[in-house]
Amino acid sequence: MNEAAGRPVEVVHLSGCSFRSSGRKQSGASLTCVPSSAIGRWGVEGEGFYPDRVLVRVQDLTPEKADQLIWLRARVHTSRAKGKQCFLVLRQQQFNVQALVAVGDRASKQMVKFAANITKESIIDVEALVRKVEQKIESCSQQDVELHIERIFVISQAEPRLPLQLEDAVRPDGEGEEEGRATVNQDTKLDNRVIDLRTTTSQAIFRLQSGVCQLFRDTLAKKGFVEIQTPKIISAASEGGANVFTVSYFKTSAYLAQSPQLYKQMCICADFDKVFCVGPVFRAEDSNTHRHLTEFVGLDIELAFNYHYHEVIDSITDTMVQIFKGLRDNFQTEIQTVNKQFPSEPFKFLEPTLRLEYTEAVAMLREAGVEMGDEDDLSTPNEKLLGRLVKEKYDTDFYVLDKYPLAVRPFYTMPDPNNPKYSNSYDMFMRGEEILSGAQRIHDAQLLTERAIHHQIDLEKIKAYIDSFRYGAPPHGGGGIGLERVCMLYLGLHNVRQTSMFPRDPKRLTP
Amino acid sequence: MNEAAGRPVEVVHLSGCSFRSSGRKQSGASLTCVPSSAIGRWGVEGEGFYPDRVLVRVQDLTPEKADQLIWLRARVHTSRAKGKQCFLVLRQQQFNVQALVAVGDRASKQMVKFAANITKESIIDVEALVRKVEQKIESCSQQDVELHIERIFVISQAEPRLPLQLEDAVRPDGEGEEEGRATVNQDTKLDNRVIDLRTTTSQAIFRLQSGVCQLFRDTLAKKGFVEIQTPKIISAASEGGANVFTVSYFKTSAYLAQSPQLYKQMCICADFDKVFCVGPVFRAEDSNTHRHLTEFVGLDIELAFNYHYHEVIDSITDTMVQIFKGLRDNFQTEIQTVNKQFPSEPFKFLEPTLRLEYTEAVAMLREAGVEMGDEDDLSTPNEKLLGRLVKEKYDTDFYVLDKYPLAVRPFYTMPDPNNPKYSNSYDMFMRGEEILSGAQRIHDAQLLTERAIHHQIDLEKIKAYIDSFRYGAPPHGGGGIGLERVCMLYLGLHNVRQTSMFPRDPKRLTP
Repeated sequence: MNEAAGRPVEVVHLSGCSFRSSGRKQSGASLTCVPSSAIGRWGVEGEGFYPDRVLVRVQDLTPEKADQLIWLRARVHTSRAKGKQCFLVLRQQQFNVQALVAVGDRASKQMVKFAANITKESIIDVEALVRKVEQKIESCSQQDVELHIERIFVISQAEPRLPLQLEDAVRPDGEGEEEGRATVNQDTKLDNRVIDLRTTTSQAIFRLQSGVCQLFRDTLAKKGFVEIQTPKIISAASEGGANVFTVSYFKTSAYLAQSPQLYKQMCICADFDKVFCVGPVFRAEDSNTHRHLTEFVGLDIELAFNYHYHEVIDSITDTMVQIFKGLRDNFQTEIQTVNKQFPSEPFKFLEPTLRLEYTEAVAMLREAGVEMGDEDDLSTPNEKLLGRLVKEKYDTDFYVLDKYPLAVRPFYTMPDPNNPKYSNSYDMFMRGEEILSGAQRIHDAQLLTERAIHHQIDLEKIKAYIDSFRYGAPPHGGGGIGLERVCMLYLGLHNVRQTSMFPRDPKRLTP
Repeated sequence: MNEAAGRPVEVVHLSGCSFRSSGRKQSGASLTCVPSSAIGRWGVEGEGFYPDRVLVRVQDLTPEKADQLIWLRARVHTSRAKGKQCFLVLRQQQFNVQALVAVGDRASKQMVKFAANITKESIIDVEALVRKVEQKIESCSQQDVELHIERIFVISQAEPRLPLQLEDAVRPDGEGEEEGRATVNQDTKLDNRVIDLRTTTSQAIFRLQSGVCQLFRDTLAKKGFVEIQTPKIISAASEGGANVFTVSYFKTSAYLAQSPQLYKQMCICADFDKVFCVGPVFRAEDSNTHRHLTEFVGLDIELAFNYHYHEVIDSITDTMVQIFKGLRDNFQTEIQTVNKQFPSEPFKFLEPTLRLEYTEAVAMLREAGVEMGDEDDLSTPNEKLLGRLVKEKYDTDFYVLDKYPLAVRPFYTMPDPNNPKYSNSYDMFMRGEEILSGAQRIHDAQLLTERAIHHQIDLEKIKAYIDSFRYGAPPHGGGGIGLERVCMLYLGLHNVRQTSMFPRDPKRLTP
């Protein structure tokens, strides 16, 4: 153990394993499994902590580091023993590097055997010499160097049988079928999400998702929006009580919010002017489809407007466009990584965003042979068809459908003042699937009451909602965006469970 | 109605009221209550929308605008008729301006009467001439100008009886008592939150809260953290099932997550390396104190570390320091606004953050006369006392207490490898109250199992949690910060309900 001349030092323990280990092997090739009990020392008080190894990142292993002796902590991605050598691929997130233990000056036969026995997905610390290679290593992200390992410490050992293999989990559908190579079905992936999330595809999806949230908020913050936090446990199921989860709340019961809409609107009535929130939304809908979750993340916007509810649409579409641009400009690596497993066309959008009226959409669908009435709602297949027709005609994967028939929208939707059959409401679509539903909201308690009665809603249940508008409310509107859908459709994926880290549906509550 | 030469125009309707109004008054002082049916027109297709008034903001009403005729939308903050004149104070958020309707060329006696009858908190559009004033108007934010109103349109009329008066709701405790002026008790404020949130104090608190979230995320994003979204509906109550809300979930039941900890840790095991999340946290605790909520917003951090768990502490304290600095530098107006109603000392912090060990804290408390054993937990009064002692000795309102006794921490806490009585865990305090609890977590399934058995936890219930660590897990730690507590304590407030927009406690589920 190192000791500064005459100074007290303290051994610092990293892991639970080390807590129980009695000693530590001295320098040289270490065969112990959990030897990492000391990886630094304390100086005298106030002088701080001195690690005895400086860990480098895999992505920084480039030819500039050639012939340096470095420390690295990484997972064992693959391991293959071959005579007196053992080849490992060491991985950190999407980066990996080839490493080699070979019998010779620095490693014994036993050490090669030890290395060969380290289970896949274990986390190890290695001390190794960086060597340039003559021929590029095509299978690794670090193609110009390999590591010649001199010491190995196992930091965390993985169990020998993995429930799924990472290389199977990222294999494109159909590829390698003739060689009998497996792909992993979605339930197995989700059951073992902690391993499935380690794949390059999952890492890319969720880094991109993190980016969507950041772009959403940054864009709105720049526009002067205030972030709000709305309660998820609510006393009354506002929209009549369907599709709502019940919670036991001490001696009474409560509900999980199906959307933050009421609270966003209360913030508008409370003069916050422009607000957004990002948070969970709960729907007790027994739908087992590719696009429904019982819990998802809502990106919600609400704003007072000055002249026309199209100011609301413009705020939202501009935010979406900023997200699309941010993803396009800053997440190309992630997009291409996902495309390797799930090929898709690049996402197309227009500036300004295309806005169609409902009547135009109905006309386009009729022209394509669909029979539907003026005030019929769009079925999911018709939404998809419309998406294709719009793409053909306007070359965009993103558009707004404005002025929905009043009859198919919720009671709080502002009617169109020029045509009582229609409303000041809109949906937004990506690749033909709905990602946002929104409207100008009725801000007048009396009209709201009339519309609720028309919809046969129990006024007692929405009293608090209606009362929010009794003390002066500005004209306002907004909408809620489904984060998982945005990610799924932007990337051209086909199941919203792929873009939810721990998805919840009627049949899945774990992990 | 204006009409572009020969072009079709469309009247655009703003409000629900206007939907039902049959016509529109012509120019001149308008007495109709809901006349704002047209505030613009459409050009021919593609040419966009032309508002017939350009609304200015109250905060932009400065002497530079003198003698201009402007349009403004604002709330009637106060209204006082005096002979042939009516004085109004018009408010937008924290800004307000004096306005005047006087009988003369531009306004009739009826119009003055109409203005005087507009209920407080109504939202109106006014067309007015900006006039410089000789003597500063001390009671308004815009002190150098007043508005001479020429036209008034009521956009949204407030009911005549307000459940609370804004000026009462912002009055400091005790002030004006001799004049018999009222203050508003907390329950009345919360029952009528949509009005209470309009006060300058509430506006400032929640703008600052929005800032805390943004500073938290921006700091972490710069450090390479990934934002994650964790599920709130979970299948098993991980820490033994106490204090957890139950949800009916289709044909089974589920729970509301008491913290995102398990999911943050799974993300670490899934190689995300450094993660954070911002979201609701649920505690079914029947505590009716100034600092407990049943639903609050958690700012959660988790990270793998390389050498020592103090890397985790340093990441968190640095994030807190960035938040404190950001608030100090960018939210002075908000801080001072809150201080007017709730005076407090400026929040003090050190760089680097003070870190005390538990044993030092016990020694300080004993010196101050407290009797407690080495391994006793800190009571709330002792935490407060310790906060005062630390403030006296170190002049800081923020510090970390490190190395808690193992016995008082949850089963997943990493024991101190050097002293089995203690643990690698910590709390953080602001003004003597806990805002974060955190620890290095056990990342070894076997040690975790042993510790769970020691705590007599049913292993079956935490199987999924323990299994997460079976396939290689790096050493890691983290913590969860209560957003509402951070805001409360930073501002020196005394009740966490003041910093929760729509607080939830055992007795409050509304609004």
